Amino acid sequence: MPKNTLLLALVQHPCTQDYQDNLDRSFAGIRNAAAKGAKLILLQELHTAHYFCQQEQAAYFDLAESIPGPTSEQLGHLAQELDIVIVASLFERRAAGLYHNTAVVLERDGSIAGRYRKMHIPDDPGYYEKFYFSPGDMGFTPIQTSVGKLGVLICWDQWFPEAARLMALAGAEILLYPTAIGWDADDDHAEQQRQYHAWRTVQQGHAIANGIPLAACNRCGIEQADDHHSQIQFWGGSFVADPQGEILAEAPTDSAHVLLVELDRSRSETVRRIWPYLRDRRIDAYADLSLRYRDAEDGEKTDAP
Amino acid sequence: MPKNTLLLALVQHPCTQDYQDNLDRSFAGIRNAAAKGAKLILLQELHTAHYFCQQEQAAYFDLAESIPGPTSEQLGHLAQELDIVIVASLFERRAAGLYHNTAVVLERDGSIAGRYRKMHIPDDPGYYEKFYFSPGDMGFTPIQTSVGKLGVLICWDQWFPEAARLMALAGAEILLYPTAIGWDADDDHAEQQRQYHAWRTVQQGHAIANGIPLAACNRCGIEQADDHHSQIQFWGGSFVADPQGEILAEAPTDSAHVLLVELDRSRSETVRRIWPYLRDRRIDAYADLSLRYRDAEDGEKTDAP
Repeated sequence: MPKNTLLLALVQHPCTQDYQDNLDRSFAGIRNAAAKGAKLILLQELHTAHYFCQQEQAAYFDLAESIPGPTSEQLGHLAQELDIVIVASLFERRAAGLYHNTAVVLERDGSIAGRYRKMHIPDDPGYYEKFYFSPGDMGFTPIQTSVGKLGVLICWDQWFPEAARLMALAGAEILLYPTAIGWDADDDHAEQQRQYHAWRTVQQGHAIANGIPLAACNRCGIEQADDHHSQIQFWGGSFVADPQGEILAEAPTDSAHVLLVELDRSRSETVRRIWPYLRDRRIDAYADLSLRYRDAEDGEKTDAP
Repeated sequence: MPKNTLLLALVQHPCTQDYQDNLDRSFAGIRNAAAKGAKLILLQELHTAHYFCQQEQAAYFDLAESIPGPTSEQLGHLAQELDIVIVASLFERRAAGLYHNTAVVLERDGSIAGRYRKMHIPDDPGYYEKFYFSPGDMGFTPIQTSVGKLGVLICWDQWFPEAARLMALAGAEILLYPTAIGWDADDDHAEQQRQYHAWRTVQQGHAIANGIPLAACNRCGIEQADDHHSQIQFWGGSFVADPQGEILAEAPTDSAHVLLVELDRSRSETVRRIWPYLRDRRIDAYADLSLRYRDAEDGEKTDAP
């Protein structure tokens, strides 16, 4: 029996404020990966732009575009030319005053297989995303493609086990996260390392808890906000984990990289047979997951001093 | 301001088929830890018995006892004598033909602060727990004690992000897992290592996703089933992770150990301020977590080949 494999590639690169320069880098990485046989390619979050969310500026809404639109069309042509599936991440303009952080999946025939609008939106110093992106309204729905059912999520989503689980329950065969995350120079080395390892570990945990592989593609390079009040060193480190959470491959933290990984598509079946979590979930006892907090009924302070 | 710390201890040891011998080991570990200042002590799963679930034998129901009962009373006396809180794990007889895998928490005054009945019950070769234990019917409710609100879960629960999340949403300040997990000699070294690391990683992920520390206390030693058809090498490795998932301390995989860890109780507040996941959970979109599976509406096969 032939081995049932899928060659996946992650394209990690730094970004500038030049749209064409960024797109050229993504395209070069895609062509490089396709030449080596990759059939599924994951790009980093907002790969055509610098990370403009370091400050709140209405002028940056000019960077948004419709989907389908100029970038998704170029990506579609490339997907068709190279006979590959591409998961891209764009700043979507849906209507005047209504924007999303959206991943779009291009099929091998150049068509749009589907899109995912980032559901969990962060807002922290240097990551003012709630200003730019309306929370997604399409739920956690995997996208069916010719290379499998893709559980596409985006960046901040990666910290939420609920998102990964809902994708797995809907039949996602792999979790894919375009990402933009980095270090704050004000944090010391130990704190930076804790953050980096926590970012990897929590995602490895999603792979394990759901018995499916997971890939995260992060940008690299240092970007400074226009007002010079903020600077992020994006930590690269794009990686792929298998259904037991093992890191199969990882990119460097500080330079552009095309990461190629051969996935054994039969592995999930094997792992889920020995660790059948889906069999044993206590669905009769999970209703409170839809609460913001399980406040004590008698007004008792539940979060002790 | 005085540092707000809690000295936690995990007591890891091998077990025999001799109840008194096992209890003596637990008690010796508890006394050792208390002498060093520990205020909260976590024991391993079913610490008074060998891991009888390697085979299905009705006679083993003789090992069960009521709570309160002889063992919980002895543990209560010890908690009172040493002025500590103990999290123990017992085979609970609730009624004829109705048994649970239960953790009981003994308060510093010797009283029972609360109990948790294991919600997720495994059943795999060598771990025939569905034969012995009825699934818990008390939900995921933390137990308030004089040393904090404890999110007590048990073994198989550790693979389910839902359990950890529900405890955190109810105000748990720490997750505590009595555990009995080990290696099957039929698996090769690489597979054994993947399992061991997956076990640690998925739990580190719960600490990270919820911004609270986590401790898992596992037994060690090799135990053979009476019928000689099964043998488990329990992998010890009891550990404590901080709210960012960092391993603060770990026990050896092959020998008894009392693991002491000083927890900084202000750390969760700090970590949750920089990573405010509870703020951003999409509770409007989590309802399907209460489904067994999100089957495709049109009968499409969602789990592709």
